[in-house]
Amino acid sequence: MYLIGIDVGGMSIKGGVVTQEGEIIFKTAIPTTEKYTADYSISEDIKKVIDLVVEGAKINLKDVKGIGIGQPGSIDSKKGIIRYSNNIALERVPVVDELKKYYDLPIYINNDANCAALGEHVFGAGKGYNDVIFVTLGTGVGTGFIIDGKLFEGRECAGTEGGHMVINMSKDAPLCNCGQRGCWETYASATALMRQTKEAMDQHPQSLMHKFAEEEGKVSGKTAFMAAKQGDKAGQEVVDNYMSYITCGLVNLVNIFCPDAILIGGGISNEKEYLTAPIKKAVNEGRFGAKFNPSIEVKTASLKNDAGILGAAALVL
Amino acid sequence: MYLIGIDVGGMSIKGGVVTQEGEIIFKTAIPTTEKYTADYSISEDIKKVIDLVVEGAKINLKDVKGIGIGQPGSIDSKKGIIRYSNNIALERVPVVDELKKYYDLPIYINNDANCAALGEHVFGAGKGYNDVIFVTLGTGVGTGFIIDGKLFEGRECAGTEGGHMVINMSKDAPLCNCGQRGCWETYASATALMRQTKEAMDQHPQSLMHKFAEEEGKVSGKTAFMAAKQGDKAGQEVVDNYMSYITCGLVNLVNIFCPDAILIGGGISNEKEYLTAPIKKAVNEGRFGAKFNPSIEVKTASLKNDAGILGAAALVL
Repeated sequence: MYLIGIDVGGMSIKGGVVTQEGEIIFKTAIPTTEKYTADYSISEDIKKVIDLVVEGAKINLKDVKGIGIGQPGSIDSKKGIIRYSNNIALERVPVVDELKKYYDLPIYINNDANCAALGEHVFGAGKGYNDVIFVTLGTGVGTGFIIDGKLFEGRECAGTEGGHMVINMSKDAPLCNCGQRGCWETYASATALMRQTKEAMDQHPQSLMHKFAEEEGKVSGKTAFMAAKQGDKAGQEVVDNYMSYITCGLVNLVNIFCPDAILIGGGISNEKEYLTAPIKKAVNEGRFGAKFNPSIEVKTASLKNDAGILGAAALVL
Repeated sequence: MYLIGIDVGGMSIKGGVVTQEGEIIFKTAIPTTEKYTADYSISEDIKKVIDLVVEGAKINLKDVKGIGIGQPGSIDSKKGIIRYSNNIALERVPVVDELKKYYDLPIYINNDANCAALGEHVFGAGKGYNDVIFVTLGTGVGTGFIIDGKLFEGRECAGTEGGHMVINMSKDAPLCNCGQRGCWETYASATALMRQTKEAMDQHPQSLMHKFAEEEGKVSGKTAFMAAKQGDKAGQEVVDNYMSYITCGLVNLVNIFCPDAILIGGGISNEKEYLTAPIKKAVNEGRFGAKFNPSIEVKTASLKNDAGILGAAALVL
């Protein structure tokens, strides 16, 4: 039996046929429409992708165990509804019911960060850990939680928004998309790192960060890391501060959940041990009851570009 | 069948015989010894209390379903061990094994805030809610979580320390007992409120807070509330800020857990609706996805002085 995983993003809807061991045997993608309407639901595009991957993988729907969909935004996983989504303008779309008209299969939908956490737990770096915090450092900060081997969603799948945990309640703290100031996301996302990098570059015209930004044609999440690795003091300061922001939010979550492991995903996780080693040390030292409580593994997520498809497919299992 | 609940505190060990409906039929307390040693474990004092309440309630041990113990500090509930406790200096005490020598009964131990959360869920204001955040605003800020009707403890019962969630990562933030700066506890505890009240009194010699503090013979958690209720501007400012600190931490937790209800306990909760009404409004407006996500009840805890005994007894159920 195969699983179908659908990964809805701001730019495209990706889909894949996946074995129960987490191998993708066929995948494809189509662009998202500019604006979905009452007459043309996003479910129609999801159906297109499902049909394409079934055809491409040369399988029969009879051999499919179920369909899982990962979707950014607030999802009611029990009712199968997208409550709302920011990046693609969607409000109250009953995706699962709409797709049930076409497929006589179990269909699941969940938040994309939740899917990614589940995917890592079932198929990736989170295998073998019972309690996992998954954090993705990208445009924003997404969090997903595995508690006692199961995906934790909060009541009505309306929790797990760890990126919107205020870590600086000062009135001068950066404004977040969510309306609050000082959310973890405004300090620890890749977007935030780029802002921090630009600010430091303005203050340090001699910093190597300028050289690397020029070479890459832009300031990216890598700029400060590259400079720091070359011994650039201003770059190192950016990296040190950025890691302390990541750590601050992680310690908060660890003090609540005490997981076996923290998995870090998103573009920034390409820094691998350079990122995870100091954070692991800081989290284990900074947590409450450090001397007595069980220690915590910190690793990078392993599913990378396929995390969305695999995580969505894992909903079926 | 009866339950025995033991509530270990810094000053005394309280105990009670409790019906399965949550009625205390007999209770008593003994003071804690200055310092427990390898030769004289705290288990000996707990045994004293158990024997006293069994005698006082005129019941037979055969009619006891089990014994529950609530204990401040880091508790390994699975192994029945106090990992460590701050206020009574204890390290690695195998309380359950020590008591098993005397009683052929199921014996449970858990963190006192966890017990209080469970007690409210089983016997108090949390009845009927499946997902509850319990917060006690006292010397510190204790948190307990009911998820899907069950007590959530974190891996190895080493989580649920929501009071040690940093909400102000500034280097100028107040230092917490745990070693971090800017923990929620340093802003939202009764201790913090008294500090905030004293600071405001220094700045406002004409404030009514001076009058109320004089009448009570000290600055307490009530001082600013009393002044605010009389229209005192400086008192109102202290109360408003204090409520915003409580709200900040609650919104962080709500964004992760999305509970049905938040229950507020501890001395400050005596302010009842004066405290909970504005906090309920602020939490529901400030949370992520406020427009779409389910709303959250905010109430005061109901078990008051007996919370410790009842919460510990609830461990048995």
